[in-house]
Amino acid sequence: MWLETRGVEYREIIDKEINPFVDKWEEEGQFPAHKVFKILGQAGFLGVDKPTEYGGMGLDFSYNVAVAEELGHIRCGGIPMAIGVQIGMTTPALTRFGSDELKKQFLVPTIAGDSVACLGISEAGAGSDVANIKTTAVRKGDEYIINGGKMWTTTGCQADWMCLLANTSKGPPHQNKSLICLPMNLPGIHIAKKIDKLGMRSSDTAQIFFEDVRVPSRNLIGEEGMGFTYQMLQFQEERLWGVATVLTPLENIIQETIDYTRQRKAFDQSILHNQAVHFRLAELATEVELLRSLLYRTLALYVEGNDVTKLASMAKLKAGRLAREVTDSCLQFWGGMGFTSEVLVSRFYRDLRLMSIGGGTDETMLSIICKYMETLPKK
Amino acid sequence: MWLETRGVEYREIIDKEINPFVDKWEEEGQFPAHKVFKILGQAGFLGVDKPTEYGGMGLDFSYNVAVAEELGHIRCGGIPMAIGVQIGMTTPALTRFGSDELKKQFLVPTIAGDSVACLGISEAGAGSDVANIKTTAVRKGDEYIINGGKMWTTTGCQADWMCLLANTSKGPPHQNKSLICLPMNLPGIHIAKKIDKLGMRSSDTAQIFFEDVRVPSRNLIGEEGMGFTYQMLQFQEERLWGVATVLTPLENIIQETIDYTRQRKAFDQSILHNQAVHFRLAELATEVELLRSLLYRTLALYVEGNDVTKLASMAKLKAGRLAREVTDSCLQFWGGMGFTSEVLVSRFYRDLRLMSIGGGTDETMLSIICKYMETLPKK
Amino acid sequence: MWLETRGVEYREIIDKEINPFVDKWEEEGQFPAHKVFKILGQAGFLGVDKPTEYGGMGLDFSYNVAVAEELGHIRCGGIPMAIGVQIGMTTPALTRFGSDELKKQFLVPTIAGDSVACLGISEAGAGSDVANIKTTAVRKGDEYIINGGKMWTTTGCQADWMCLLANTSKGPPHQNKSLICLPMNLPGIHIAKKIDKLGMRSSDTAQIFFEDVRVPSRNLIGEEGMGFTYQMLQFQEERLWGVATVLTPLENIIQETIDYTRQRKAFDQSILHNQAVHFRLAELATEVELLRSLLYRTLALYVEGNDVTKLASMAKLKAGRLAREVTDSCLQFWGGMGFTSEVLVSRFYRDLRLMSIGGGTDETMLSIICKYMETLPKK
Amino acid sequence: MWLETRGVEYREIIDKEINPFVDKWEEEGQFPAHKVFKILGQAGFLGVDKPTEYGGMGLDFSYNVAVAEELGHIRCGGIPMAIGVQIGMTTPALTRFGSDELKKQFLVPTIAGDSVACLGISEAGAGSDVANIKTTAVRKGDEYIINGGKMWTTTGCQADWMCLLANTSKGPPHQNKSLICLPMNLPGIHIAKKIDKLGMRSSDTAQIFFEDVRVPSRNLIGEEGMGFTYQMLQFQEERLWGVATVLTPLENIIQETIDYTRQRKAFDQSILHNQAVHFRLAELATEVELLRSLLYRTLALYVEGNDVTKLASMAKLKAGRLAREVTDSCLQFWGGMGFTSEVLVSRFYRDLRLMSIGGGTDETMLSIICKYMETLPKK
Repeated sequence: MWLETRGVEYREIIDKEINPFVDKWEEEGQFPAHKVFKILGQAGFLGVDKPTEYGGMGLDFSYNVAVAEELGHIRCGGIPMAIGVQIGMTTPALTRFGSDELKKQFLVPTIAGDSVACLGISEAGAGSDVANIKTTAVRKGDEYIINGGKMWTTTGCQADWMCLLANTSKGPPHQNKSLICLPMNLPGIHIAKKIDKLGMRSSDTAQIFFEDVRVPSRNLIGEEGMGFTYQMLQFQEERLWGVATVLTPLENIIQETIDYTRQRKAFDQSILHNQAVHFRLAELATEVELLRSLLYRTLALYVEGNDVTKLASMAKLKAGRLAREVTDSCLQFWGGMGFTSEVLVSRFYRDLRLMSIGGGTDETMLSIICKYMETLPKK
Repeated sequence: MWLETRGVEYREIIDKEINPFVDKWEEEGQFPAHKVFKILGQAGFLGVDKPTEYGGMGLDFSYNVAVAEELGHIRCGGIPMAIGVQIGMTTPALTRFGSDELKKQFLVPTIAGDSVACLGISEAGAGSDVANIKTTAVRKGDEYIINGGKMWTTTGCQADWMCLLANTSKGPPHQNKSLICLPMNLPGIHIAKKIDKLGMRSSDTAQIFFEDVRVPSRNLIGEEGMGFTYQMLQFQEERLWGVATVLTPLENIIQETIDYTRQRKAFDQSILHNQAVHFRLAELATEVELLRSLLYRTLALYVEGNDVTKLASMAKLKAGRLAREVTDSCLQFWGGMGFTSEVLVSRFYRDLRLMSIGGGTDETMLSIICKYMETLPKK
Repeated sequence: MWLETRGVEYREIIDKEINPFVDKWEEEGQFPAHKVFKILGQAGFLGVDKPTEYGGMGLDFSYNVAVAEELGHIRCGGIPMAIGVQIGMTTPALTRFGSDELKKQFLVPTIAGDSVACLGISEAGAGSDVANIKTTAVRKGDEYIINGGKMWTTTGCQADWMCLLANTSKGPPHQNKSLICLPMNLPGIHIAKKIDKLGMRSSDTAQIFFEDVRVPSRNLIGEEGMGFTYQMLQFQEERLWGVATVLTPLENIIQETIDYTRQRKAFDQSILHNQAVHFRLAELATEVELLRSLLYRTLALYVEGNDVTKLASMAKLKAGRLAREVTDSCLQFWGGMGFTSEVLVSRFYRDLRLMSIGGGTDETMLSIICKYMETLPKK
Repeated sequence: MWLETRGVEYREIIDKEINPFVDKWEEEGQFPAHKVFKILGQAGFLGVDKPTEYGGMGLDFSYNVAVAEELGHIRCGGIPMAIGVQIGMTTPALTRFGSDELKKQFLVPTIAGDSVACLGISEAGAGSDVANIKTTAVRKGDEYIINGGKMWTTTGCQADWMCLLANTSKGPPHQNKSLICLPMNLPGIHIAKKIDKLGMRSSDTAQIFFEDVRVPSRNLIGEEGMGFTYQMLQFQEERLWGVATVLTPLENIIQETIDYTRQRKAFDQSILHNQAVHFRLAELATEVELLRSLLYRTLALYVEGNDVTKLASMAKLKAGRLAREVTDSCLQFWGGMGFTSEVLVSRFYRDLRLMSIGGGTDETMLSIICKYMETLPKK
């Protein structure tokens, strides 16, 4: 019901306010996050599963996944990814563990779309290996003094604040990290460069350096030393969100490939009428339904309160690999057109390649699954 | 709840009455269907979704799928397949469309396990191409006179009756077929041979010839000419049942491979501790969870009354392919042991190869999926 | 011997005159063909297998393949592709069937690198389906009047002349086509656009229209009506050349991935030391050696005078698929870096995707192989 | 030339003396090695690359590979495997390092086909991990006293002598092993059982125990402590031989599948005429040509005296995987017939599964390739 009514509304916003400009933003290498997020925030879509007292809708996480599926209608991967950062990656710990004051300052405008958020986890020397980050936040009086840097920061070039993970002590790597709300206009924050990427080109990705950046200690989220733990808590949701944003593009690509190959003739018949083409598309559609089924089953278990880390990691793994398979196979059937920048399939061939790398690589997912299967060697 | 209590009971029957004898029956090329079915029938498992007035339990089809998953604990593929024929392939049309008299004569003993049933559809010249069968049943007075033959008939060497599909007129192939309950002790029925198979060796497979076999016309199920249609109706259930029987063996094989490779050493470490081994097993486990999720989603839709032909065909396709992948990949990790007949994985490597062929080949599934995707060329 | 001495020379030219500028040319969407070809022409590399009387070296085709392998050291796919057009696609028919006058006018400067050539075969409505092109060249007195257009024309934006395939009569499609040397500065030739492509970005690809373009009839190559046949003759060489240009990049990518993952640490060890990484790289290296072996075997048979259409098509098919597999698998091991535009692997991930499409799609290769296996249905 | 004349002769022997009996021998679980080897020995085929003074032909190893390709016409995998043991696995070290006396006693009758040989390397606890075997041969006076056991011994149930690898000292595992010619009729040799295998059923595989078996010390091949080194030397030849025996069956299976699917109709057309069928067969044929090309290239390098361990291991790896792929894919197109024991494809589906396990598993090959690529972690 909710989906039926809000889904329509969401689709209208996408079709009117976003899709007509995607090509331009892709070309420019950045979409205007403040403008787009304000529109989405006013429609209520940035806080679907956030508490009503901070501007959210107070619904459960499954509604957020429904939103993610709708976002898949955006004709690129970069904007849904940036929305995912705003909705699902920068705010869960803040929402759960942040002080009321901190939530008013950072959560409320983020849900409203007045503020653009980025996530400061990955570093140049530590991608999926979060425990190994080097950035420090040293407590001095009422402030933290931050040094180091972040890499691969989505929307980092235009963000108003960062949910920063930094080492606040020298203890063991899983207990020495803290999350801090860091305004991005503070002195000592340098945006070193916008990284030129294979895909996701409308989403800017920053490399950022910190040089004696001073931030009030009250900007700490929850307890000091709990940052790694807080961060782990939201991985299940991040993975399910990621899977959901991929499903719709994959279905759309399959359908557009059917439509194109049906009208396109070679050797006197529709390309679609080649058995190698329609059988292959049927195989791909089968795999997409498998992924959708796993997502829904996992989501239902999660909303009931179960630990779904294993199933969510499986879904993430499959989503990454299937995205590569679907886009590569479909692109082939477009012939020369598939190799141009004018068709959706070639954009998603580039954009969705990130699915097997970002948010934990395929290999990281496999390690997690193995951990739950108890098949990893003891160290 | 039902599953929890009955599942335990079922497992006990399997572990006490079936599994200890499987190796012997495999060796002999036949399991004693009358003995095994009587045990299952007495425990109530042959009529879970059949009406109570004929000895069934009156539950919905999802309970049957639960039974199928339990059957997967039998240490071969042949016996679950024969049970599937008994429960799900010979009786659905009879149950829905048969006369009360016919049901008393054939359905009641089949559910009770007093009678062994086989299905007479496939013929030497027509495997998945059911419309093209050649066997005829010509009405003469109160009898049908049957000529022709059947191929690939599971349990055909020991069955008491056959649910026979035959051409009862010369009309168009989808409207000239009828289903008839055929006692197998009638004169003119010749069991030509037991087919020597790659796998499923404890399940006998017959080639059967009919030479002027006379059967009373009241043995017709439902209406004349409706046989093809009746048969189509049960394909969704057949496919879902087939998928369910595969899930448990695949999980068991993965787990036994983990156990074996954990204790087995080569080059001074557990074979399991090779990343190529535990990562691969994690990939396979992921695919099994995907298949399970699709089965459950499809089943829920089916029980609610939806047409799930497309999703059920997708599940069947994936089950066949995944069964080959899991058994082949796991067998590899057993090294020389995997190439012996002493381990479960090598038996299922042979047995489950049938999943992509029987009950409609993979290619037939792809055609059905394409039909629903509307991608088939118009003739 | 030749390779040892000339290979070194070639590598020096590549490392000094080409590779330092590739990033810039990729960025600009075009490399300066006149400048680069002049350098290559002066060194003698554009006419290795061309007759000495027109400026070539008079060696056999295997030397050309050796050149192609060297070209693989260029750090992009676009420039080798354009060189391939210049060397192997625009001139073979001219060399074999052209008049002496025509060769002096077009072949000599092309070999010398004074003239840039493009190939006018593909059209908007006919990619691999060459027989179905629509462009016409109508004979009127001493001229042909050309109307229609060409698509996917490599180097079309800067070419001095085009080897044009056009319909010169209304006969059956395999006998009504002719090849014509068409100067690109004639009135009526419109370069409609430079196509924005997924990869091969330093090579410009043009869409071109002809509107009553008048060209002297003496520019006809060989006999009228033989164009399709001439074109077919050079397909074996085109495919072998294409395969050769892919081998070196694939080996380089594997080696650079080894080097990168060796020095890059995650979770306290080199990424390379993960068995999933080094085993996968070994599998890929194995496939590359397989492809190299097939190329050499086919080449030896070809130089001896055999028809190698089947083997050459097999090599082309494998090259296309393997290029996708190697670049995709290696990119994964670069993690976030693989998704940037800064590394070779992400460029070739885009560039080499063309191998399965250009020069005959994978599906076209499969059809040719089937033709030689005599497994195609009779029409 | 040699191949042309002797190939014909070989084929006649296979077609007259072997193939008519294969089904029976498969059924019985053993072929009569003495009878078959005598026939082959008389025709000169057991010593093609052995010195003429011991009854061989004195040709180079490439002729042996030609023989292996011919052997592929035998309609099972077990007999060629046993011939391979006789020709290529039990005698190379003896030929190169054995005393003249030892060669007269063991090599001459083995080449003549008067004696059947088996290889005693693998043990129950050490498959591919040869260095880890436990069997000991303790020197006492003029004898070795042997204790321990061997596993997976091909032709072990009917062999006259074994080329035994045993630990003759307690030194480091690569320097404490020796090869000994062990007559199989000595007291203390117990053939524990014939292993029941998934495939290769006409070749018996023994488990053998040694209990204080006394053998003259002059039966030592070459020097004491050099056994592991000698054994390693012949691995290149073993792998190339193995690859060669697989090529012919794969081609035959593809061709028989073409023939069967051409005449077999479903849904009113030849099964072959489905594009999914003939395209897939073309893909498989392509892979077989790739493998053949790598074999020939490697063989030429080997005959020239190069170390081809890396390339031979690649060929072995590919052969094992491709054999699984070809047999599995082709079997599918035979439908129900493919699942019977009556067709070649189902036998080779079982037999060739061994290729990825025996003679070093796929994983062992990958480790060797990695060693040559220098990508293995340092211990």
